[in-house]
Amino acid sequence: MDYKILSDSLSEEKIKSLSTEERQVLCAELRDKIINTVAVNGGHLASNLGVVELTVALLSVFDYRKDKIIWDVGHQSYSYKLLTGRYDRFDTLRQEGGISGFPRISESPYDTIDTGHSSTSVSAAVGLARARDLKGEDNYVVAVIGDGSLNSGLAYEAINDIGQKKSRMLIILNDNEMSIDRNVGGLSRHLANIRVKSGYLSAKHSTEYFLKKEMPVLGKPIMKLMLAVKDFFRFIVYRKKPTIFEDLGLLYYGIVDGHDTEAMIKNLDAVKDLPGPVLLHIVTQKGKGYKPAEDTPSDFHGVSGFDIETGKIPASGRSFTSVFGNKMIELSAKDKKIAVICAAMAQGTGLVDYSFKYPERFFDCGIAEEHCVTMAAGLALEGFSPVVAIYSTFMQRAYDEILHDICYMNLHVVFAMDRAGLVGNDGHTHHGLYDLSMFLSMPNMTVLAPRDYRSLQRALEYATTKADGPCSIRYPRGTEAVNTFDADLDNHAEIKDDYSDVTLPYTAFDKGSDYCIISVGNSYVDGQEAALILEKQGISGKHINLTMLRPLKEDVLNELTSEIRYVFTVEEGITEGGAGSYLFQLLSSKHEVFNFGIDDPLIRAASQTRQKEISGIDGKSLADKISKIINK
Amino acid sequence: MDYKILSDSLSEEKIKSLSTEERQVLCAELRDKIINTVAVNGGHLASNLGVVELTVALLSVFDYRKDKIIWDVGHQSYSYKLLTGRYDRFDTLRQEGGISGFPRISESPYDTIDTGHSSTSVSAAVGLARARDLKGEDNYVVAVIGDGSLNSGLAYEAINDIGQKKSRMLIILNDNEMSIDRNVGGLSRHLANIRVKSGYLSAKHSTEYFLKKEMPVLGKPIMKLMLAVKDFFRFIVYRKKPTIFEDLGLLYYGIVDGHDTEAMIKNLDAVKDLPGPVLLHIVTQKGKGYKPAEDTPSDFHGVSGFDIETGKIPASGRSFTSVFGNKMIELSAKDKKIAVICAAMAQGTGLVDYSFKYPERFFDCGIAEEHCVTMAAGLALEGFSPVVAIYSTFMQRAYDEILHDICYMNLHVVFAMDRAGLVGNDGHTHHGLYDLSMFLSMPNMTVLAPRDYRSLQRALEYATTKADGPCSIRYPRGTEAVNTFDADLDNHAEIKDDYSDVTLPYTAFDKGSDYCIISVGNSYVDGQEAALILEKQGISGKHINLTMLRPLKEDVLNELTSEIRYVFTVEEGITEGGAGSYLFQLLSSKHEVFNFGIDDPLIRAASQTRQKEISGIDGKSLADKISKIINK
Repeated sequence: MDYKILSDSLSEEKIKSLSTEERQVLCAELRDKIINTVAVNGGHLASNLGVVELTVALLSVFDYRKDKIIWDVGHQSYSYKLLTGRYDRFDTLRQEGGISGFPRISESPYDTIDTGHSSTSVSAAVGLARARDLKGEDNYVVAVIGDGSLNSGLAYEAINDIGQKKSRMLIILNDNEMSIDRNVGGLSRHLANIRVKSGYLSAKHSTEYFLKKEMPVLGKPIMKLMLAVKDFFRFIVYRKKPTIFEDLGLLYYGIVDGHDTEAMIKNLDAVKDLPGPVLLHIVTQKGKGYKPAEDTPSDFHGVSGFDIETGKIPASGRSFTSVFGNKMIELSAKDKKIAVICAAMAQGTGLVDYSFKYPERFFDCGIAEEHCVTMAAGLALEGFSPVVAIYSTFMQRAYDEILHDICYMNLHVVFAMDRAGLVGNDGHTHHGLYDLSMFLSMPNMTVLAPRDYRSLQRALEYATTKADGPCSIRYPRGTEAVNTFDADLDNHAEIKDDYSDVTLPYTAFDKGSDYCIISVGNSYVDGQEAALILEKQGISGKHINLTMLRPLKEDVLNELTSEIRYVFTVEEGITEGGAGSYLFQLLSSKHEVFNFGIDDPLIRAASQTRQKEISGIDGKSLADKISKIINK
Repeated sequence: MDYKILSDSLSEEKIKSLSTEERQVLCAELRDKIINTVAVNGGHLASNLGVVELTVALLSVFDYRKDKIIWDVGHQSYSYKLLTGRYDRFDTLRQEGGISGFPRISESPYDTIDTGHSSTSVSAAVGLARARDLKGEDNYVVAVIGDGSLNSGLAYEAINDIGQKKSRMLIILNDNEMSIDRNVGGLSRHLANIRVKSGYLSAKHSTEYFLKKEMPVLGKPIMKLMLAVKDFFRFIVYRKKPTIFEDLGLLYYGIVDGHDTEAMIKNLDAVKDLPGPVLLHIVTQKGKGYKPAEDTPSDFHGVSGFDIETGKIPASGRSFTSVFGNKMIELSAKDKKIAVICAAMAQGTGLVDYSFKYPERFFDCGIAEEHCVTMAAGLALEGFSPVVAIYSTFMQRAYDEILHDICYMNLHVVFAMDRAGLVGNDGHTHHGLYDLSMFLSMPNMTVLAPRDYRSLQRALEYATTKADGPCSIRYPRGTEAVNTFDADLDNHAEIKDDYSDVTLPYTAFDKGSDYCIISVGNSYVDGQEAALILEKQGISGKHINLTMLRPLKEDVLNELTSEIRYVFTVEEGITEGGAGSYLFQLLSSKHEVFNFGIDDPLIRAASQTRQKEISGIDGKSLADKISKIINK
């Protein structure tokens, strides 16, 4: 569809020259393009609809060709991409070979920094501003960060550091009263307090509004001066109490209506040249302009697609996520010592029902992975069995806390890591490839990698009731693979109370001794598929699946692989330093061992299936590589 | 020496029953014991002298047998140890087999949680308080945290989280205006502001003081009530503006003189039963009561010993730390793009001179390792070559930022890690054992491990001028080993501009082909010693030292080891997933490979030499193990 203003040839100069009315048209067109694209390709809808006006205002005031605009997390950068040279490719959003759903410096010179994980924007902005000052240049640096991301310690550390060497930079606090789920914590309350005290919602007291109304003869120079005399200004217009940001040494301005493009342009223009760091507080609504997303923004945070007319999102059905959530409810009913902790991801980790069922034992600590883990240490010291549910990729944030506050003391804390392995269209920043490498070198850590729903359930039982000390469980994004190729799947159906089905290597395929595939966790399906393909080629071997990697039943594994020359390990994780290299050392004296895993972690967006193929760890690729090695 | 009050049999009840005068005597005795012990054993002096009165006050109000007292970082827990059953063993402080210089749950039931790394106390306290509430118990939970530790994001995340489920707990902010070095950042300024506004220094306006003076007829109940009515109270006694802590949902009280035991007891007693979380702000002086430590507390942060009479600390002389600092000055003189970042450790990382020489390119971000790294990304994106100087053990805090904000974008950032390997008397929380495991699995990362001063210098040159992308350099605590056994040390003295002396495996010993030792970085001396011992036993082999592990010159290494059956790797790092396992995969098809490293990371305090022996990676142990394997 052709738009009146939004187009491939919309230049930086053209954006700056738009009239108020044209800007309104542009915003509507951006929304239309985003809604239509996400409905088909999937992606982040609510956050992007919330910052349409902000993006237009930023590009009306700043020059994206030389100024540095940073989108925290980056899942709200669609309007920015559409306006900075990627309109023509926008239909490829999040598709294989297409443009990323996040800022990527490899994609455009106007993407300042790669983002994906939360709360990095202010730190990066501090570095960019200091570099500019050292070089004696004069570009602007702007970080846009949501109120949820401000809960993270990283953002606080950055804001705290700004206080000492006061480089000129602008932080835009995009306050929508939620991160992915509704926001939590003291800061959240403080922001609510500011909103109430500033009379934001009732009077729309923006800087510009006040000055125009009260002093119509005064122009922009005076307005700027008054903005600089912040105490006086605040005293008259806003609240009488300083905000947390001023306590930390920033100049604070706001609140501005984040859907009023004109007000934002005037405010940005007024504060951009103030010396030192400025925080401009705007309020936006997630999902703005699309009723279904306004009503239930959490549902439209990340979607795989939806029906534009009805706002209906295809039901997600059973998944590792829902199996986890349900199992935690079941286990908590039996065991009062189980508590569950998440980091602003109750929905993503499948814990919404849990949070209603056991509110007193459910702790959403906000985007604060480090605190989640050390807080769990406190619970464990008192005899509880906390389960920390954090995506594999975000668990990386708590590496030191896991080691220092849990493993060294051998505390009984369970780490439940959803999205372990390849995650699909979010791309490389979101893959969960490092958990095995991290956890296999930590002392006292039990490492579990369930292959399917049932083994996830059993692993959770084992971890909470049988295991002592720290215990990690990784499971993939999405649904259990349907075993069209394996009628024998259920021949280990008998569930024993001794948990041998969790702890022992499982012989999934056993037709010969040409080779042995050892698959880790959910790579089970790929190992099994490879074994069946090879069998058809006349190469008969064995497939063993491991759901417990540490402690490893070495004797059992040795017996199962005895008399077999070729051993191939498969895992959906980084090859270097992963489970394979751990098994390599164990087995290489008696076998020729080859490790298959993710060699290159920078796998861009594509479906999970395609990403497996690209990495060469799908069943067909494995069979191919194995037959080549055996026949060499 | 015998004390009047301080003794092995000083019970919890006895502490509580002491008179004001007896408490003063006790404080003097604690100081005496601490000074005399640290003068001989080494340890943390300044921080411990600062909290003598606080410790006595805490134990006068709380019951350490059931209440939970947490010492953040834990290096200030000496008085606590002396008063909770460890007086008799205090002479063994920080010695092999003795008591730890940090709280250890394995040492005493009264140590609530192991600490060592900064800023974990509030998170742990939140967990302990929530566990208590879930169990329906009523013990108190107290976290003592310094103002420097509050800069860390982890502490902020915890305080922010307290705001939502308001468990009763007490945070004591021990404000001494410095962490290890003088404190930095916005929070630091805010605290200074509170101190000035409260009139703390001039009037000593403590709660108790005001109430006694103004309302002598009112007793404790009224005082408690008024404390609870915080806005009224603040309005009259303190400042009119709320603190950052109140913004985040805590009740804030203070400032109390942290060396006035009686005032602290009254304040603690008044606030301990308030519902919800309370922050009590006290001010102490590091080094209090020992003039040399009061004058230069940074010098007395961690000492290896000193002369009590004169206060003289043995000059530390040349070390890897000073070599690093001097080299950075030299390199920065030549290259304006080099900047240096540290985390509240200018002294510890050898950067004090640098900070004076290049203040504009020196960034001390406070105890904020995560922000240090992501801030470096900003500098690198603008063409700078930032060097992030953080101890190996604390670098663990920034795992995700290194991976997500540096490696994925292949940014040129150098990680300089002092204290890599075994650190001696600080014990297991401070060992730097995980950096090789972390960095060897990260994409684009160059991994350097210099063997001696000169190779550290060359590695820094290489990393800043030759290397592209992220580059890590690990070097040990202390001094270069004196090569009494190796007269040939300088036979690779010729320095070439091509950096082959950094990048290529170095053949340090070459007498035969019975075996090949491959040592990593500073394990060079141990490998060399082992080779000499074996030679005397008639076992003639080869010793190759690696200073560059990634990218690894595999062809050169293969050639050097060809025709040799036994290969032994040695590293001062965790064995599982470390450099050895990386080399194992490379070499095991042609050799029998054995990895020697730290199998058990929980090595307690002892000298570095002893810790090597305990771990079996000193020259003698290596020779022993190697000859056994060869002769088996």
